[in-house]
Amino acid sequence: MSDYVRNCWYMAGWADEVPDGGWLARRLLDQPWLVLRLADGGYTMLADRCPHRFAPLSLGERVGDTVRCGYHGLGFDAAGRCVHEPFGGTPPQNARVTSLPVIERHGALWFWPGDPALADPATIADFAFCTGPEHLRAHFTMQANYELVTDNLMDLSHAEFLHKESFGTNGTLLRHGRQTVLSEDDGAIWNNWDITQAEPPEWARPMLGEGARINQTLHIRWHAPATMALFITLEDAATGQPIVPAMANPHIITPETPGSSHYFFTREHGPEAEALFRKAFIEEDEPMVEAVHRQLGGEDFWDARPVVLPTDAAAIRARRRLMQLRRAEAGAEPPAD
Amino acid sequence: MSDYVRNCWYMAGWADEVPDGGWLARRLLDQPWLVLRLADGGYTMLADRCPHRFAPLSLGERVGDTVRCGYHGLGFDAAGRCVHEPFGGTPPQNARVTSLPVIERHGALWFWPGDPALADPATIADFAFCTGPEHLRAHFTMQANYELVTDNLMDLSHAEFLHKESFGTNGTLLRHGRQTVLSEDDGAIWNNWDITQAEPPEWARPMLGEGARINQTLHIRWHAPATMALFITLEDAATGQPIVPAMANPHIITPETPGSSHYFFTREHGPEAEALFRKAFIEEDEPMVEAVHRQLGGEDFWDARPVVLPTDAAAIRARRRLMQLRRAEAGAEPPAD
Amino acid sequence: MSDYVRNCWYMAGWADEVPDGGWLARRLLDQPWLVLRLADGGYTMLADRCPHRFAPLSLGERVGDTVRCGYHGLGFDAAGRCVHEPFGGTPPQNARVTSLPVIERHGALWFWPGDPALADPATIADFAFCTGPEHLRAHFTMQANYELVTDNLMDLSHAEFLHKESFGTNGTLLRHGRQTVLSEDDGAIWNNWDITQAEPPEWARPMLGEGARINQTLHIRWHAPATMALFITLEDAATGQPIVPAMANPHIITPETPGSSHYFFTREHGPEAEALFRKAFIEEDEPMVEAVHRQLGGEDFWDARPVVLPTDAAAIRARRRLMQLRRAEAGAEPPAD
Repeated sequence: MSDYVRNCWYMAGWADEVPDGGWLARRLLDQPWLVLRLADGGYTMLADRCPHRFAPLSLGERVGDTVRCGYHGLGFDAAGRCVHEPFGGTPPQNARVTSLPVIERHGALWFWPGDPALADPATIADFAFCTGPEHLRAHFTMQANYELVTDNLMDLSHAEFLHKESFGTNGTLLRHGRQTVLSEDDGAIWNNWDITQAEPPEWARPMLGEGARINQTLHIRWHAPATMALFITLEDAATGQPIVPAMANPHIITPETPGSSHYFFTREHGPEAEALFRKAFIEEDEPMVEAVHRQLGGEDFWDARPVVLPTDAAAIRARRRLMQLRRAEAGAEPPAD
Repeated sequence: MSDYVRNCWYMAGWADEVPDGGWLARRLLDQPWLVLRLADGGYTMLADRCPHRFAPLSLGERVGDTVRCGYHGLGFDAAGRCVHEPFGGTPPQNARVTSLPVIERHGALWFWPGDPALADPATIADFAFCTGPEHLRAHFTMQANYELVTDNLMDLSHAEFLHKESFGTNGTLLRHGRQTVLSEDDGAIWNNWDITQAEPPEWARPMLGEGARINQTLHIRWHAPATMALFITLEDAATGQPIVPAMANPHIITPETPGSSHYFFTREHGPEAEALFRKAFIEEDEPMVEAVHRQLGGEDFWDARPVVLPTDAAAIRARRRLMQLRRAEAGAEPPAD
Repeated sequence: MSDYVRNCWYMAGWADEVPDGGWLARRLLDQPWLVLRLADGGYTMLADRCPHRFAPLSLGERVGDTVRCGYHGLGFDAAGRCVHEPFGGTPPQNARVTSLPVIERHGALWFWPGDPALADPATIADFAFCTGPEHLRAHFTMQANYELVTDNLMDLSHAEFLHKESFGTNGTLLRHGRQTVLSEDDGAIWNNWDITQAEPPEWARPMLGEGARINQTLHIRWHAPATMALFITLEDAATGQPIVPAMANPHIITPETPGSSHYFFTREHGPEAEALFRKAFIEEDEPMVEAVHRQLGGEDFWDARPVVLPTDAAAIRARRRLMQLRRAEAGAEPPAD
């Protein structure tokens, strides 16, 4: 995991992805993991690899809060200690499975791959807004490095080109948008687009008077490593009344491998919202972000010498923050690690 | 492109592969390119990679003679200059797309990836013979390094073994053939097989008298990097009269990647010529050349210590010429390039 | 082949896999080979790669005891000498195909990739027990390094977990088994499980009296590199009478590539034995061993620091023996080889 920032909360999955009495098996930070809900309602994460012969524990079975390897039968508890030796002898004390703390918060499961002493649940980013039943929790993977997904989200001007069909963008961000980039004490970086006195989108015109103008906000919040939240409002510029209810959505990215990323989000229920997700995420964003990943072909982003535009300010700030965190961690540890 | 000879004309495609108002997107010399026909009838080649976020420009759109990126909207002209900034500001001067000169000649498009000052259209090999309407221009790719395709073509004795079924070869080249290898001042290398007083091929016997003999020429011309032309004649040895009209065909190879090659050729129209192409190129040549590529497994041809036969003389001469050109270019440039 | 022990008999295939007048083409020790039965009933192995242009000889044709390349026609005899030059000249003396001695023994073909002077057929492991017509000779490949397949077989305690469904194991090995590891002068390593006074397996109960107990032996014999034989007996503990006839089966592994292995075995004829093979080998063993291979991801087994259990004693001894043989061979040869 040396390439990833370690002292950081990463999302492992949605709590409701973890089956009772079983586990969620998922590759995270380029290692295979099991996520288990325990009898007391808490969670644990175990490396999906037996220390004996390296069999995936996910090919074994769950017995209470322990997992038994399906190859030669060693059993491990929630802390990764070997607690079962099938010949009836003392479990070997050196047989340990890596175990990580997992916290449930707002329906999401968060793990801390770094120093457990630094893991403060109070620093988990706030997603209280997406706990209501109207939010369908969802997940897909992109075949691209997670920082390229961050780049995509932290510069929403791409919607004017890539999402013309899905979101019906009409150039108002380009003509009327003002971008503000903010950093907060808790490490949050905001990229805020405020669009004022703009032509309404096609679909909103019937709700408004002739010649009406709208104000729109597109604010996105980033926390390391790639934990984002998008907030959108749309109001009648004359009255200040909302045209649609304010929207808030998680866009939380966790590296699966160096070349693929878990993308956790919520959407509304129903076929219409499903179709919009397919169009915008799967048909528009995904091919573009994956194409950029393939174009880089493993080359470092900075080595490829990107031209930096003013609209990249927040995405670049997030990349720099991650680089600082990586360097700080590299400096704080023995070089051989 | 450091492994490829750069000061050389390469074929990018046939002119009629480029759609009006769009582009031909093709990987050439291991880089993605767009080939555009411009309003004035000329052509340009642009790197298919936006310098901003490395999106493929081929996911964007064409506006007149410019290309607009589909990710964040930057527009580039035929020379690769950024001429459109979607927020209405000054296009960033450092945002440049690599652009290469392209020349149309005899229905083919030729590009020069090296020093533009050295690009002399007069040195494009002559393919005037394949411009007639009887020539169907075609293209396929082989999963093999381009020099292995050259080897195949520059030693036509392989036809006696590999093309028995397609071309009905019957051993006359082995029994009656005389090979001559010639080099010309313009860099051409010829491998000429002259077959005299040989038994006619099966299909030609009904056209000839009992016991008639034929003379046949199989001459192939190579120019760097892998630009070949094949000339075939077949005549009655007694009268000197042609049995079939003389044939001349391009066999022009351009590297797609180190392990795959574009193969540009012409054939006659109609299902019979199509079937012959499939048999000889796709069922006979392609599996063999691709198997050789896989057998080498990335090993350098010379490091694998091939046994060299007299029939390899022209193929070896072409390989040596390319090596000399590569070395000369490596010496003429800063080592860091 | 530098990673493989060379002075060792490896199994190339079953004699009846080699067609008359043709060849068996198979990748062995990461090189492609042809195995031919000769007119005198003997065998030879030829590298499946022509020394001229590296074409696979398997794309050519067989003429008597020689093989002719399908690309440019060179012919090679059973010793790999070039004996045919298609233009009628002297065959080039430097055109040689690597040839290895092959010995048929007990229906299997054995080759020796090392120093021919050391190849003593008397040291081929004894498989006389599987020559009867009741043995169906079979072969499949696993996508795993061959030493991981050895590990699987040399620790049969895995049957209690992985083969519960196929073999109906019921924990008797864990409760009543005693393991003995033996080394013999000829290099054999035995891992012997002796189970005494145990509950009979479910299927055997109807054959036995109420409350009867069984004795069972599960003995497996290893010779370098991965040539194993499994011997099983099951008797009534009270009478010492066999419940089923003693079974003896080859489990002979030959590396195909560093990441895949040929697995040669025999089974009984008929759909029931076929189904048992599918269940135990293909559905139970193969996914587990391949998962372990993928988990290691190319990492050396010892570098991954396995926890070693008492039951691993024989598997570890076999791994150490191979390591000693590899080191001895590395020391006995020039370092550049």
